[in-house]
Amino acid sequence: MPYVNIKITREGASTEQKAELIKGVTDLLAKILGKNPATTVVTIDEIETDNWGIGGESVTVRRERGQ
Amino acid sequence: MPYVNIKITREGASTEQKAELIKGVTDLLAKILGKNPATTVVTIDEIETDNWGIGGESVTVRRERGQ
Amino acid sequence: MPYVNIKITREGASTEQKAELIKGVTDLLAKILGKNPATTVVTIDEIETDNWGIGGESVTVRRERGQ
Amino acid sequence: MPYVNIKITREGASTEQKAELIKGVTDLLAKILGKNPATTVVTIDEIETDNWGIGGESVTVRRERGQ
Amino acid sequence: MPYVNIKITREGASTEQKAELIKGVTDLLAKILGKNPATTVVTIDEIETDNWGIGGESVTVRRERGQ
Amino acid sequence: MPYVNIKITREGASTEQKAELIKGVTDLLAKILGKNPATTVVTIDEIETDNWGIGGESVTVRRERGQ
Repeated sequence: MPYVNIKITREGASTEQKAELIKGVTDLLAKILGKNPATTVVTIDEIETDNWGIGGESVTVRRERGQ
Repeated sequence: MPYVNIKITREGASTEQKAELIKGVTDLLAKILGKNPATTVVTIDEIETDNWGIGGESVTVRRERGQ
Repeated sequence: MPYVNIKITREGASTEQKAELIKGVTDLLAKILGKNPATTVVTIDEIETDNWGIGGESVTVRRERGQ
Repeated sequence: MPYVNIKITREGASTEQKAELIKGVTDLLAKILGKNPATTVVTIDEIETDNWGIGGESVTVRRERGQ
Repeated sequence: MPYVNIKITREGASTEQKAELIKGVTDLLAKILGKNPATTVVTIDEIETDNWGIGGESVTVRRERGQ
Repeated sequence: MPYVNIKITREGASTEQKAELIKGVTDLLAKILGKNPATTVVTIDEIETDNWGIGGESVTVRRERGQ
């Protein structure tokens, strides 16, 4: 019955990639901790690059510099 | 001064339903734990069905199967 | 399949009160939004009063002043 | 390596204000706790006023009353 | 630069299992989305069974019934 | 009425440092966005180093290597 929240920047993750992520994380929790996949919940938040900061600046600014 | 975060799939909850939810949860915390409604904060996140997984697959896929 | 996280200060909520809260929130989501109780998840975080701030000061300091 | 999540109502915070917030919080964690800015992550969630409740009612309703 | 939060019940996950989980999730984000492991952050919350509800009742009560 | 959640590793932050953090973040939101300090909520989660991962490994392991 785990709950997993994944936050990534909104930069074009496809439906397929998100489905793979949901499947992968659910399998991992079953394999490592024996958690029941049927009650494993995964949510993905895609966050605008203006709203994500690291190193004291937004990802938007970092991307403009090529990082 | 509780803080409550409610995550649901984005599938058409109305403004009225969300207002009822805010009122209901706030009342519950006052009744059960004596919490002051004036400082009880409730936020609701509505999450795309592609971004919500249960049982290792997205809600989009489950809905297509009629679940 | 909603997920609800409730944060309260750690000030003696009993097992019974927490069970009531879990039941109450789950019922609310079923009644207002038709959500399936079987897959409604509720987690409660009890947070030390030193680690909870409102109005720019900790709850510990507020409690000492009788608030 | 702290992680900070800031939730505000979606009411027109500008890119510049959000950048200031990211910088300010990162600096604060470095100054007070000696945390390394390079691995300090800040995310900002802007939440619709219908989806934010305080005092048992939504911010939308409060704003209409001039609060 | 993803941020992942994993919530599980506090029922004896070992240091080794948690290390495996951190490694597994980080690898998954690199493989599926090309995310840089160096800035991928994973936190694990272990939650008392009294504080985790599903189906309207706490995990403590479910465990007593053998679920 | 912002809500801020700060996650740090549990490595000895003092009551005074946490009070400073609460005050600092609340002031920042007032100064930058004009948010009312009276309804600004800040919570701090202190997380065991075994339960915090970066770069695919736990902070415990990094600290042992002197990082």
